[in-house]
Amino acid sequence: MGSALVFPLSMNGVNIRIVGTPFDREVIDECIRTGSNPKISRPFPAGITFHHFEDWKEVVPGSDYVIGGISSYGAEWFLENVLAYLPEEIPVFTVVKGLRVGEDGMLSTWPQYWEKQLATKGLHRKVYMLGGPGIAQDIINGEHTVTTISGEDPDVLCMMKESLETDSLHVSRTHDVTGLEYAVAIKNAYALGPAIAIGLGQRPGAARPTGVNAQAAVFFQAAREMRRILRTVGAESDCISMGLADLFVTVEGGRTRSFGILLGEGYSLEEARERLKGITLESISAVKSLYEGISILAQRGFMTAYGKVDMAEFPLIEHLYGVLFHGKDAEFPWERFSFDLS
Amino acid sequence: MGSALVFPLSMNGVNIRIVGTPFDREVIDECIRTGSNPKISRPFPAGITFHHFEDWKEVVPGSDYVIGGISSYGAEWFLENVLAYLPEEIPVFTVVKGLRVGEDGMLSTWPQYWEKQLATKGLHRKVYMLGGPGIAQDIINGEHTVTTISGEDPDVLCMMKESLETDSLHVSRTHDVTGLEYAVAIKNAYALGPAIAIGLGQRPGAARPTGVNAQAAVFFQAAREMRRILRTVGAESDCISMGLADLFVTVEGGRTRSFGILLGEGYSLEEARERLKGITLESISAVKSLYEGISILAQRGFMTAYGKVDMAEFPLIEHLYGVLFHGKDAEFPWERFSFDLS
Repeated sequence: MGSALVFPLSMNGVNIRIVGTPFDREVIDECIRTGSNPKISRPFPAGITFHHFEDWKEVVPGSDYVIGGISSYGAEWFLENVLAYLPEEIPVFTVVKGLRVGEDGMLSTWPQYWEKQLATKGLHRKVYMLGGPGIAQDIINGEHTVTTISGEDPDVLCMMKESLETDSLHVSRTHDVTGLEYAVAIKNAYALGPAIAIGLGQRPGAARPTGVNAQAAVFFQAAREMRRILRTVGAESDCISMGLADLFVTVEGGRTRSFGILLGEGYSLEEARERLKGITLESISAVKSLYEGISILAQRGFMTAYGKVDMAEFPLIEHLYGVLFHGKDAEFPWERFSFDLS
Repeated sequence: MGSALVFPLSMNGVNIRIVGTPFDREVIDECIRTGSNPKISRPFPAGITFHHFEDWKEVVPGSDYVIGGISSYGAEWFLENVLAYLPEEIPVFTVVKGLRVGEDGMLSTWPQYWEKQLATKGLHRKVYMLGGPGIAQDIINGEHTVTTISGEDPDVLCMMKESLETDSLHVSRTHDVTGLEYAVAIKNAYALGPAIAIGLGQRPGAARPTGVNAQAAVFFQAAREMRRILRTVGAESDCISMGLADLFVTVEGGRTRSFGILLGEGYSLEEARERLKGITLESISAVKSLYEGISILAQRGFMTAYGKVDMAEFPLIEHLYGVLFHGKDAEFPWERFSFDLS
């Protein structure tokens, strides 16, 4: 996603420097040599410079902003190696997904966690978020995309909107920071559900053909669970709608779709990961932290504005956790997906 | 959908009599001759009898319930020719979609309207609803499907659940009658949006390829408008989630999808209808009544629990109305689909 955003930014004449993490040594070498990131389908626009991680402290100062194009697997590293040293006056946007379960069992988004940790070091940074609904490849292709940004300072959001907006990338701004952060964080977990439904129908000798009703049934359950989580953390209507549109786009075309289809076909977590080598699978960590976080809250009888947290209301995340981490068969517990007169 | 439900009912040993409307003369003749409805892909199970409309008053008495498998185009007719004469003790389930705009400009669902009209004749009937998310063909194929029923008497709902539920058709019951009726009524209108996005990318010489981001952008706007409408009429969370899952399945595989793709490709309402001859297009009447109903409420400054009704908050339904009824180009007003710090 970090590389994808270079295309609209460059169309707006933004002066861009791409800095790799220590894991991106080969990718950056390839970029320097060819002007292309081998993981995306077209060469970068002209005029961009590429840098290895050790040069970041020379390259970054003076920038109007930093976009941290890291995955949740690099989130701790980004805090300790970049955010802890970055001059406070440079705003940071992030596209990071996923949730963190604290030692107390409480869930937080990565930006929430970063801000808290930085504050203990006397650094008062508010992180800006940039999130869905959209997949990176379509942004690169110039497909019409709506994206949403959130954060504290309206002037910074205004600057980012002007930097990013093109005739195909349409940028919304929201004050609902928590809503946006949670919406983008949890949709990768839930998008596995409808994707698994596709895979189940593709099993050799599957009892039932693949249609759209099974996907919709799981989408329905995913929407119910996502709404419960988003309302509990105080997300507002527009970010709940965004989360469901992000669920839609991830089921339709993201890497989570490919992974879920393999799980549905009967491959284990390890086998599916092997087949998708090189692709970052946010959904694995998203399912793990969501399941663990909700379980702990349920065990403690945690109260929300909508009642006590009850694991029985999250059968889909429980099923996905079982499939990923306990080798459970991917066929859904359908009887748990219908509800009844209350 | 009426014909599709015959398959699960028959698996449960229900004694089924299919009665056509006066428009179904040829279809019923064909059913009597061959045991198949020519509009669906497989023959009916054995043991079902088929009847022309004029015989209904002999066939129906003594039934445990009636399922009115009619479209919104037949809703007035069904009221005047069936509901007005049907013995009060026989419960009626309906799969009708769409909304009615009253002479006072107020929107109502068909069941709401029927109940009101019947009451003026001294008939006190509460109509039961059976709705999404699912398409008829997948139910016929035995695909896993979640469907929802609502209505007044828990015993009647229990009887219907037992009649319908199979190992692939999973039946939820809800007390949220209004929520279910509106959710199934409005999704056909909104599903045109993402389908048009697919069609736009298929125009000869389209400036942009077809991807999933544009569909997701329109899905996002559809979700925002659907949520506003559903919250305004008092729908509860589960039925809002159901409505969005129903939006998903209709974009993925319903007849509204085919119609929307043609509109996106540049065909007019009449041309697209011509190409889909014989298919009932609920989306046309759904867009018309939603647009007209919301316009009237907005003109009057109607207050809801969520503020004054404002047409500016419904740019997608306004666009769809222009495309269908005023020959407007189907390309979206993208700038109206982004929102901003409130």
